[in-house]
Amino acid sequence: MSALTPELIALLDRTTVGTLATEASDGRPRQSLVYFAREGERLLISTEPGRYKSRDVERTGWASISVRTEAPPFPSATLSGPAEILTEGIGPPTAAVMQRITGAAEPPEAQADEALAAVGRVILALTVEKVSAANYLDQL
Amino acid sequence: MSALTPELIALLDRTTVGTLATEASDGRPRQSLVYFAREGERLLISTEPGRYKSRDVERTGWASISVRTEAPPFPSATLSGPAEILTEGIGPPTAAVMQRITGAAEPPEAQADEALAAVGRVILALTVEKVSAANYLDQL
Repeated sequence: MSALTPELIALLDRTTVGTLATEASDGRPRQSLVYFAREGERLLISTEPGRYKSRDVERTGWASISVRTEAPPFPSATLSGPAEILTEGIGPPTAAVMQRITGAAEPPEAQADEALAAVGRVILALTVEKVSAANYLDQL
Repeated sequence: MSALTPELIALLDRTTVGTLATEASDGRPRQSLVYFAREGERLLISTEPGRYKSRDVERTGWASISVRTEAPPFPSATLSGPAEILTEGIGPPTAAVMQRITGAAEPPEAQADEALAAVGRVILALTVEKVSAANYLDQL
């Protein structure tokens, strides 16, 4: 059964950024703001392989993202699950994230994996398995 | 030396909510949205002693909070450091958080610690020691 209810999908569709958390090598949470795109049950983030968040995901295979809207009462939720760093077939997901960043009506043309590797881009993919701290979703 | 620059203080003053992260007992980050107030170098959150976030802080003595504004490019930063759960002298900080929640011009009258204990309120206090993932603060 999907962890993503229609309310959660509505939250994710109208919110382009979220706070990613990964587990740092000292065991502490590491947080940073990221743009994301949703593809079914997966949340996709465009990043670089040398970033701490990428290394944390390579090491732990896990991430969470906390998403909120822009105004009180701030409907919000935290989504977590298995995560991985992808380097193949990342043209379309990278284009989907770029569309979210620019707000364009259509995504840009998808680039080849080789071209994205050349500019140091990877996709951090989080499969939503658990939902926590969901609040005010009925006020979306 | 203070970790809080004037830009960070401006970010914290105009943003009433942030994503708190604590370390859960299984070692994974736990994230939830919270209102906070700032008092000097400390960020104050009103919560309940039985909440997972409170238990995490009691156990680990640490928390982080990631704060962002409401519009692109989303100026943001993550602030972290020692954290503790306070039950004494929490009337004024609880009133400061309530003022942030309601947006009132003045904080409500501070309640006695006993009255706050009776309704199950504590203060989670995070002392900002480290700043990371700070972006676009010059566009505040």
